[in-house]
Amino acid sequence: MTYEFDEQIAVTRQDEATYGADLAAGWSVGGGINGGYLLAVVGNALRHTLPDKPDPIVISAYYLSAAVAGPATVSVDVRRDGGSVATAAADLRQGDDVRITALATYGDLSRLGDDVRTTADEPDMPPPGRCVPNTMAPPEVRAIAPLMDRFDMRFHPDHIGWAVGEPSGNGVLSAWFRLVDGREPDPLSLLMVVDALPPVTFDLGMPGWAPTLELTAHVRARPAPGWLRVRHATRNMAGGMFEEDCEVWDSAGRLVAQSRQLARQPRP
Amino acid sequence: MTYEFDEQIAVTRQDEATYGADLAAGWSVGGGINGGYLLAVVGNALRHTLPDKPDPIVISAYYLSAAVAGPATVSVDVRRDGGSVATAAADLRQGDDVRITALATYGDLSRLGDDVRTTADEPDMPPPGRCVPNTMAPPEVRAIAPLMDRFDMRFHPDHIGWAVGEPSGNGVLSAWFRLVDGREPDPLSLLMVVDALPPVTFDLGMPGWAPTLELTAHVRARPAPGWLRVRHATRNMAGGMFEEDCEVWDSAGRLVAQSRQLARQPRP
Repeated sequence: MTYEFDEQIAVTRQDEATYGADLAAGWSVGGGINGGYLLAVVGNALRHTLPDKPDPIVISAYYLSAAVAGPATVSVDVRRDGGSVATAAADLRQGDDVRITALATYGDLSRLGDDVRTTADEPDMPPPGRCVPNTMAPPEVRAIAPLMDRFDMRFHPDHIGWAVGEPSGNGVLSAWFRLVDGREPDPLSLLMVVDALPPVTFDLGMPGWAPTLELTAHVRARPAPGWLRVRHATRNMAGGMFEEDCEVWDSAGRLVAQSRQLARQPRP
Repeated sequence: MTYEFDEQIAVTRQDEATYGADLAAGWSVGGGINGGYLLAVVGNALRHTLPDKPDPIVISAYYLSAAVAGPATVSVDVRRDGGSVATAAADLRQGDDVRITALATYGDLSRLGDDVRTTADEPDMPPPGRCVPNTMAPPEVRAIAPLMDRFDMRFHPDHIGWAVGEPSGNGVLSAWFRLVDGREPDPLSLLMVVDALPPVTFDLGMPGWAPTLELTAHVRARPAPGWLRVRHATRNMAGGMFEEDCEVWDSAGRLVAQSRQLARQPRP
């Protein structure tokens, strides 16, 4: 069985260093394509280039221009491959326009040590059935954000005030997360998950698109099957920009991914 | 007057896209050269390439091999320059070896908005005179870490137990920081400051060198003159790696830089 997500991030080798992709309209949001989905497409090309180092360990993406649905290429340049990790550069292009330029280090997460000492606190979430599903979003929101139809999200009821005009002002969002197609999470899909929730600025009373300048994700472990819990937070809005930290916890209670992005504050 | 730090990060244009540098032995630590200093050298070459966008806003560096004192080159490739920011790739090389490959977005921090809503808490530090100076480090430590002689650091007394064999286990370090040469902080020097303190793993009872795989720094404002406060923290040690988050606060009480690095756990 092939899942929708795997079809949508599929890449086809064109030559030794170039892959073709077809960016899916189903990942549109506002005028562009979701940055996390694009990161998973880039990550998939890197994975194909480095077969013995299948997992993203860290990836940094710089978003240079807004992508559109349709054909794209990913070119990969392996900068160093030795020992347990490899580092490569990758560009996602549409025509002559570079959409994303990225650096990444890949390895094999199953070969890393099992010593875990996480002092971070798991997000304290009511069960999914007591949270607020994304299917409750009004039709006009879903019309400009088709990507929401890819997700089964259950928002923490304390972090959903923005949906009814009552943002908390704390700069925190959290939700249960899974793909609607039933595909279980893996290191590649985590690259999408870290940019799947609405911008944390919604909780500051700033609706609207928050364009990402840069996003770096660390994948720290292969996620267990099942629901993920995702938490976004920001602590420093200044100079027309804000940082958005994301944590992804798996069903086994493990902090499997951490990311931080620098994004532009939505225009009022 | 020329400060030592500016001499040590100086770059000389060799051709349109290449700069020469001379990595200073005074920034040695263990067997290599401090990663924050190297980042400032790369950042200086980028600054020379983009004269109307003088400030690093975000930079991501991937550390591929350990640098040594002596000549190096920095090659810069401007990927996009339009509007208020420019994005470039840069490599720092010694001979045929790439030491660092980086991506960065530059702009003019003085032209960003003044709207600041920081909810992060300032590090609560006793005055510098009641903190523990780095000059108290034993001679054998200073012999393997000549870079400590570049700094006037005053460690928070609650975060210095590791120096006497009693690490707190909390994964937190904080200190007052300034350069001994009297040079005031600026956006370029902040790239060094985010990697200047000892690894936060010292506070977990793991002394030793913690090689950086990747470090991303966000510079959020031009720092005011005077003492900086620097705070390191880690919350997720797993798979032989840990993340180290750094905050830098200026004398005006503003959070001027945030960074996160992924580093290898020190070997016992």
